[in-house]
Parts: sequence; structure tokens; C-alpha cells
Amino acid sequence: MRWDRPPVDEATVSLPAWVRDAVDFTVPYERDEERMRLAIRLAHENVERGTGGPFGAAVFERGTGRLISVGVNSVVRLNNCTLHAEMVAYQLAQKRIASYTLAADGHPAHELFTSCEPCAMCLGATLWSGVSRVVIAASRDDAIAIGFDEGPVFAESFAYLRARGVVIVEGVLRDEGRAVLERYRALGGLVYNG
Amino acid sequence: MRWDRPPVDEATVSLPAWVRDAVDFTVPYERDEERMRLAIRLAHENVERGTGGPFGAAVFERGTGRLISVGVNSVVRLNNCTLHAEMVAYQLAQKRIASYTLAADGHPAHELFTSCEPCAMCLGATLWSGVSRVVIAASRDDAIAIGFDEGPVFAESFAYLRARGVVIVEGVLRDEGRAVLERYRALGGLVYNG
Repeated sequence: MRWDRPPVDEATVSLPAWVRDAVDFTVPYERDEERMRLAIRLAHENVERGTGGPFGAAVFERGTGRLISVGVNSVVRLNNCTLHAEMVAYQLAQKRIASYTLAADGHPAHELFTSCEPCAMCLGATLWSGVSRVVIAASRDDAIAIGFDEGPVFAESFAYLRARGVVIVEGVLRDEGRAVLERYRALGGLVYNG
Repeated sequence: MRWDRPPVDEATVSLPAWVRDAVDFTVPYERDEERMRLAIRLAHENVERGTGGPFGAAVFERGTGRLISVGVNSVVRLNNCTLHAEMVAYQLAQKRIASYTLAADGHPAHELFTSCEPCAMCLGATLWSGVSRVVIAASRDDAIAIGFDEGPVFAESFAYLRARGVVIVEGVLRDEGRAVLERYRALGGLVYNG
């Protein structure tokens, strides 16, 4: 059957329809916990609405707390292994500011909040994204505990980013981030990268 | 000015228009060198036509040599730091076969040919992509020599993939892959991840 499908020269990265009503882009998100609550709520809603894996992320301006973009895991929904929550958030943020880097001249500093520790792919993308700070809720071990693989990430991987000026903060609302993972497992959610 | 831009909920991953005429999807690509020549030609054309960085990639069925998808670096053209050549090729291949993994049940084995060693992001995505073999032309050192950063990739990173069944072959037509990098530098091409 696949032989019938013609070559593809375009793909779309999109958020589920519910995100538009679930996220308020008009208010600033003042503190770390408030910013993280949004990322975790996105992960939670993604599970409850059946639109993807138990992962959510958001990009903010560091100083103002202005919300630039959000992402939810979209691997299965869009048949695209690259669409982890962080990857979606980075792409939509860069499209919004019309730059391939969030560290562009004349722009304020940006940061990523993610409901779970980035995998190898997302950690690499973090370096290319131009964010200067990453804040993490659930840990790598929490993700592995429900069957996900995080890929080739090592202590040196984080050190590599830190050496290039990226601040990394772990364990902010970790229990809440982990609870979404456990909810996904309890519902029998597909572990697409086992 | 950026404050005027509304939130974004969709982004498009697309190949430059010239690719359609430059690539033959109807013939099998029989040997490693022939498959790699396509990846390198894509990198070369991307430079000469000014549509992106000096990197090209292609996904094939391992057994038949059937071409499934191609990718070229599209970071600057599409304002998207995630669109390395390998990432574009994976996404278009998965859309074509309508699966988030190229290792889906009932599908033949797939492989990636890339004109340059994958960065940290692309190596992570390689694990999620479902390809069972990666063939590389130019090396990490070749990319670094013209000013690109490859991110947190270590010897253990490749070992991690090999331990999960991914065959990795380096140095196929390395000189030709490196020549494209050097051509890009000679033309004064933008090193977007310096």
C-alpha cells in the first residue's frame, strides 16, 4: 500500500485545537512555579484529551514572563517522531519572532519550561534554539519509570550546554510533572519510544 | 515590533522548490556510494541555490534502494532551528508512510544517508526515527573546521544507538561531503550555530 503514496515535500507542525482555548497568551506568567504550572497543565490536557504523550512545554521571555509559544507532544497525532513538546514550542516561538534563534540581536532573553527532562534530541535543539534558561519538572528517571527512553543524554550533555551559557534548573514541581506521567501509564497510553 | 505578532499554532516544514526537479524518486539507488551521492548533491545544490546550510540527507529502503524522502538544511530559510537536513528527511519519510516510526510492523527496514555527521539533536532523532542504519560522509571535525557546533555528541552517544541495533557507517565519500562544507565557507555562508 505504501508504494502507492507519492513522495512528500511538506509537513505541518500544529497544536491540537483545544490549546487555543486552554492557554491565555495575554497575561504575564510571573514566577517559575506559575510558568511551570502551564507546561504541566498542557501535558495533563494532552493526556486527558487523547492528543498525545504526557509532555508539555512553553517558551517565555525571561524578564517579563510573557508567553511566546507552547508545545505538546504530537508524535503519534501527527505521525512525526520529532514532535516532542519542546520541539513544537521552539518551532512556534521562532516562527512567531521570525528568527531561527531566540537569542537574536535586539530580542530579550528567552527560556523553556518543560514538564519533563529533555531527551537527547530536545537537549540538542535547546542549544540551537537560543534559549538561555531551561526549567525542568519531572526527571529522566521518572520518564524511564513509565517506559520511555530518553536517548543518549549524559551528565556531560548538560555540562556542554551550561558551558555555553544555558542555565538549567531541575526539579521545579517535579511531583506534579511525574503525576502526569503516571496518569498516562494508568490510562494505558502508548509508549512510542520504548 | 515583535509584540505585534500574534501567537502561532502552526508551522510548515517544506523543501525548496528546486528539489522536485533535482531528485528522481522513480529509480532505485543501488549501492552505498550512489545513495550517498544523492545526499551530497542535495547539500551542494542547497549551497549553490542559496536555500540553506551545506547539509543534505535522504531516507531509503535498505533492501530495495527505493528513495523514500530527502531533506536539506532549512534553518535560515524557514526560521526554524530544528530543520537540519536529517530532521527534514525523517519527517517527510514518516508522513509518506503515515507512521511515526520507520520501523513500523510490516514495513521494510530503512536507512539514512547524510552528507555530514549528525549533531546531537539529529542523533537523538535518529533513535526515535526507526531507521536501522545511518551512513555518514563528512565528519564532526569537518563541520567544526568551518565553524559549526555539533552539540553534546560523545563516543558513548554512538555506542548508545549501536546498542539499540542501529548500524552506523562513517566516512563514505567523506571528501565529497567535506568539499561542500568548504564551498559554503568559501562563499561566506552564514554559520547559524557557531
